[in-house]
Amino acid sequence: MRLVIAGFGTVGKGFAEVLHKKSELFGSYNDPVKIVAAFDSKSFAADQNGLDPMELVARKEGTGSVGLRKYEKGTDILDSVEYDVLIEASPTDIETGGAGLVHMEHALRHGKDVITVNKGPLALKFKELNGLAKRKGATIRFEGTVGGAMPIINLCNENLKGEKVISISGIFNGTCNFILSRMDNGLPFEQALKEAQQLGYAEADPKYDIEGIDAACKVVILANSVFKRNVKFSDVSITGITSVSADAIALAADQDMAIRLIGEVSDKVLEVSPRLVPKGHPLSVSGTLNMAQILTDLAGPITVAGKGAGRTETASAVLSDLIALMDRRR
Amino acid sequence: MRLVIAGFGTVGKGFAEVLHKKSELFGSYNDPVKIVAAFDSKSFAADQNGLDPMELVARKEGTGSVGLRKYEKGTDILDSVEYDVLIEASPTDIETGGAGLVHMEHALRHGKDVITVNKGPLALKFKELNGLAKRKGATIRFEGTVGGAMPIINLCNENLKGEKVISISGIFNGTCNFILSRMDNGLPFEQALKEAQQLGYAEADPKYDIEGIDAACKVVILANSVFKRNVKFSDVSITGITSVSADAIALAADQDMAIRLIGEVSDKVLEVSPRLVPKGHPLSVSGTLNMAQILTDLAGPITVAGKGAGRTETASAVLSDLIALMDRRR
Repeated sequence: MRLVIAGFGTVGKGFAEVLHKKSELFGSYNDPVKIVAAFDSKSFAADQNGLDPMELVARKEGTGSVGLRKYEKGTDILDSVEYDVLIEASPTDIETGGAGLVHMEHALRHGKDVITVNKGPLALKFKELNGLAKRKGATIRFEGTVGGAMPIINLCNENLKGEKVISISGIFNGTCNFILSRMDNGLPFEQALKEAQQLGYAEADPKYDIEGIDAACKVVILANSVFKRNVKFSDVSITGITSVSADAIALAADQDMAIRLIGEVSDKVLEVSPRLVPKGHPLSVSGTLNMAQILTDLAGPITVAGKGAGRTETASAVLSDLIALMDRRR
Repeated sequence: MRLVIAGFGTVGKGFAEVLHKKSELFGSYNDPVKIVAAFDSKSFAADQNGLDPMELVARKEGTGSVGLRKYEKGTDILDSVEYDVLIEASPTDIETGGAGLVHMEHALRHGKDVITVNKGPLALKFKELNGLAKRKGATIRFEGTVGGAMPIINLCNENLKGEKVISISGIFNGTCNFILSRMDNGLPFEQALKEAQQLGYAEADPKYDIEGIDAACKVVILANSVFKRNVKFSDVSITGITSVSADAIALAADQDMAIRLIGEVSDKVLEVSPRLVPKGHPLSVSGTLNMAQILTDLAGPITVAGKGAGRTETASAVLSDLIALMDRRR
């Protein structure tokens, strides 16, 4: 299984480390796993015989670049090597899909499988990308796009294939949940946000998280993949947490409730908004966890929770998708 | 896919109903799904052309018997029809494995796949049964044996195949959890148990639940299947909830803790016992839910919860196993 890693930030590095750490896993497959190319926004490395994952990580951490060579277009790199799977881990661009969308379309057009942790392309062009994959006999897997290590996409679409999923409600952004949990303890919004930034949970520009954009991308992916809807990011009704006041949190607490940023999807609903949740309810969870309640027709309510972000945690979702692809080819 | 259903109690009936309700699911497979035989402790029905699932349910509910014909040995029925999968849903016998063990061994010996919700045979002879299956090129699937509709077995062994599972701790008996939750509200044990019996959560003879035997069976199945250990029911250190006093519950509550019956498995641990759990911790959940925390090396902690019992809920686990078998043959 020859891999190209597009994007070598937190998840790209984490995945290279996981490949190294878990090399014994692949011993039972005839087809050895190797990285034949890896690129970030500035540089690339390629070797048809396989690159050393830990060398890529060391170079990236030491120099800021994954490779020694410059390139013009990511698709030129894809054209220059023979590969089976594109691991798409470029930064998310929710306006245009960015470079990630270009990489994915290119790979699929050539019949290559894609594993993506990049939400933008799926939130904008889910139907188009899956249609293209189908026509070309390729597969897109995307467990890591929703809730990092929280198992939900493959659980719903594979393990729970016999169920009708009626609705999914969940906490899909760990940063917002951290901020709201800290506000439960009496901190004002600005201070809770600053704390999240100091701890590395929130970006310097926190818009993407606190305005509900990130959670909305995940809701769109769930709607399209689990509910087979055909919706786009712009279809989601989004309210972020910037308008949640300390007073509102205190009022909720008086009624033994907490305010949480909840994403909800069903055949009819597509929404991200701060909601009152009774304390003790699974969705009243505190901290950076992601959590989802999946309501099904036969199994009833199923709850899953896991780390919504993190270098190794998100890489673990990519690994599970890779193993699924390898098992299918076996 | 020709099925034999052994055992036609709650789960057997529930599964027949699910097959009827979900018949459209099977339209995309070349191999139609049909029940060629079904039997309970007293009677059987068999038809190589397929039995009507709802007729079996109606007869069982109307007369107490699934079929019109008597039989001597379940294995005679297995020998009399051509089938692909045995659905083993006979009553659990944790002393000897009971009729279920005999059925499973017989089916596997003939190279037939087995889906079981019957815990006894797996808690007693996991290694032997899986060894036999392997030699005969057959498969045993058993999602429904641990936590009913809570997805854990296939999640750990398939979706999380790339992870090292470090430990699993969970609430594996909804009856005990209901009783302990009611004791949180001030009810003494005897009264909480009576309430559980009135609501149909506990059997007239509640030993199996309240002495931790049921939870221990599940812990053994997890140890053998997820941790690849070779342990038996008798290896589990078991303490039930009969000795949990109202005083102990009150003392725990003073420290903002709850008492829950926790099963824990790891490479070293194999235990079921009442434990103090901080309120707000995922394992402090109330009611009849089952819940498990799966600690993994890459993904970190993953939590799953779902209904631990119920006619349709447990049948849904059998359905997911059946679909997995059908997908593999496709």
